[in-house]
Order: sequence, then structure tokens, then C-alpha cells
Amino acid sequence: MKHTPALARLIDALRVLPGVGPKSAQRMAFHLLQDGRDGARALTASLEAALEKVGRCRRCRMLTESEFCFICSTPQRDASLMCVVESPADVVAIEQSGGYRGRYFVLMGHLSPLDGIGPEQLGIREFEASLEEGEIAEVILATNPTVEGEATAHFLSELVRQRGLKATRIAHGVPIGGELEYIDGGTLAHALAGRQSLL
Amino acid sequence: MKHTPALARLIDALRVLPGVGPKSAQRMAFHLLQDGRDGARALTASLEAALEKVGRCRRCRMLTESEFCFICSTPQRDASLMCVVESPADVVAIEQSGGYRGRYFVLMGHLSPLDGIGPEQLGIREFEASLEEGEIAEVILATNPTVEGEATAHFLSELVRQRGLKATRIAHGVPIGGELEYIDGGTLAHALAGRQSLL
Repeated sequence: MKHTPALARLIDALRVLPGVGPKSAQRMAFHLLQDGRDGARALTASLEAALEKVGRCRRCRMLTESEFCFICSTPQRDASLMCVVESPADVVAIEQSGGYRGRYFVLMGHLSPLDGIGPEQLGIREFEASLEEGEIAEVILATNPTVEGEATAHFLSELVRQRGLKATRIAHGVPIGGELEYIDGGTLAHALAGRQSLL
Repeated sequence: MKHTPALARLIDALRVLPGVGPKSAQRMAFHLLQDGRDGARALTASLEAALEKVGRCRRCRMLTESEFCFICSTPQRDASLMCVVESPADVVAIEQSGGYRGRYFVLMGHLSPLDGIGPEQLGIREFEASLEEGEIAEVILATNPTVEGEATAHFLSELVRQRGLKATRIAHGVPIGGELEYIDGGTLAHALAGRQSLL
């Protein structure tokens, strides 16, 4: 069965959302046009407003509506610590853990030469400018533990060390609450290699 | 961590989509503002166009961009058969099965007095008008096999029978490819009660 043109275009456009395939896109389109019309109007309005207002922090590239993001403009944050992450969602996750008081640097991706994503696209100029400001003592590389994330962390660590600063990587190991039996081999190997002496 | 106002509004607005909770809404918002900006612009444009252009078929209430939907305007369809469904997605599913050549009537919901959804909201006037046109011989009630769907089917079947027309309900039973061992009791009871003699 063929959808009408406007409906087909809407279903197609909804597939830009992460994790939305053809079936969910159809379900969403029907819902928006069926009994979600008010919500649909609110959605277009807020998406347009966000596209216009939300930009990136001049220092850390986090999403923000001002020149500097909320974290960069809080003087209580430890300016000697910089945590490098791949996406704004990682910042939210680390903030929710409550265990970090430094600043961030958001790459908005990872090195991926085949997709044309090199250092330039990850804001390497802002990154180096931050390092040269002289406030930072340690850079925590918190990219994802994937092949691309590891390569990105390695690349950035070189830049950090060249300037005589400390580069660290977040610990990889068995998650809290996890059961050894169900943890993959790579994680277990990391957990063993990274073992720490009990005090 | 608090989101900026425009971002918070966007995350909130995205939750109008079916099956999208706070976490997926955040992920979608970040994706749209991070590297999906072109897609986001296409999404607002197509959603606005769809809201403006897509209305309901005058006869069967299916989503359409003209006065009558694609199915109602195809003369080859059997006008003596009407299949009543809860949503446009059900029409798509039945059309894809390829086993039906009649027309439809889309309720856009089911009876749910607590939510203020009575016969009026389900287009009962258009439904009765269709019955009175004189072309229909059989009404197939294909609402979902839920409590509300059954109640809606029962209510509509009364209206159909009052006019001396045939009202039927789609068969409920074991799905093709299903294993008896894993089918719930209600379905099994239906499958047994609805058994048919082998020819």
C-alpha cells in the first residue's frame, strides 16, 4: 500500500531520529497526525527554536544557548581537569554520576577517516587552544571503549603529552553489580590487567 | 544536570512520539542538534506540510490528502464489504497481508469512556451514514482483541444488526508459525472454542 506524498515524506524524515526504522517511523507519523496534532505542532515549534538557539560552547563545544556552557561558566569547577568525551549525552551521564568536578571537552564524534571525520571535525583547534591556556594539568580521556574511541584517545594523549601535561584514561573493568560469568572476554582481560592492590 | 531551556523544551516535545521516554528523547534531541541538523530541518518542514495537507477520508476516515482516500476512490474495491479497524496502521497491515479487497472504516481509537472517547469521537455518524448508503452487505469488525476493542466491536455489531446487515469478527486463535507451548491461555481458549471441522 502506497502512502500519500506528504505522509511518505514525513515517515522518511522521522527516520533521521536515532533508533527509528521504517516501522516505528510509520507508527510515529500516524500518531502525530491522528491524535497527537497539538503535540506535533509543539514539536515543530520547539525543534525550530532549538535549531536556532542552541549552539556550541566556545571553550568545550558542549551544547549551549550562550557563548559558554553552564559548566564552563561555573567558577567552582576545577579548571585544572579536563574530561574529553564523544558526545553531550556523555557529559550528562558523567554529571549524573556526581563524581566529577572538572571541566569537559566534547568531541562530537570520534576519529573515523572513512567517514571523513578527522581531527579538524572534532574541534582539535579548540582542544589545543584550551591546553595552551595554561590552566589544565590533567586531561582525562573518556571516549568510548570502541576501536574508534581508543584510537581517538590515543591520538589526543599524544597532543597532551607533547605539552608536558598528564593524560589519563578512564578505567575499564567489570561494571558494579555485574556478574563475572556474563562479562565478555575483552572486559575481563581489561579488569585483570588493570587490577589494583588492596590497601 | 539542568538542560538549557530550548533543549529542555525540545526533549519534552519529543516525548509526544509513541514509545519515546525521557532517555530516548534526550538522545534524539542531542542527535538532531549535533550532527542531524539538516535532517532536523527536513523533519520540521515535512511535519508542518503533513499537518497542513493530511486530513481524513470523508467516507472511511483514513488519512488522506484528498477528499476520499486511495482505497475509497478505487472502483475495483468491493463496496459491499467494510472492515472496521482502530487505526490507519491497521489498514496498512491488512493491505500488506493482501487478503482483503473491500473497503475500510477507521475509528481512530476505541471506546474508552474514562478518557472521554465515546461513539461521537469514533465517527459513529459517518459509520451509520455509510451503512445507510445501501451498498454494504457485511461489516467485518477488526478492532484489537483487547477489552476496549471487544467492547467497541460489540457496540458496533449492534448498529450493524439493527439494519439487517451481517456483522462478523476476525478470527482469534494460534498465530501461524506460533508454538502452542508459548501461547497465552486466553488465545488458546479462543482457538479451541473457534475450532472448525476439517473438510
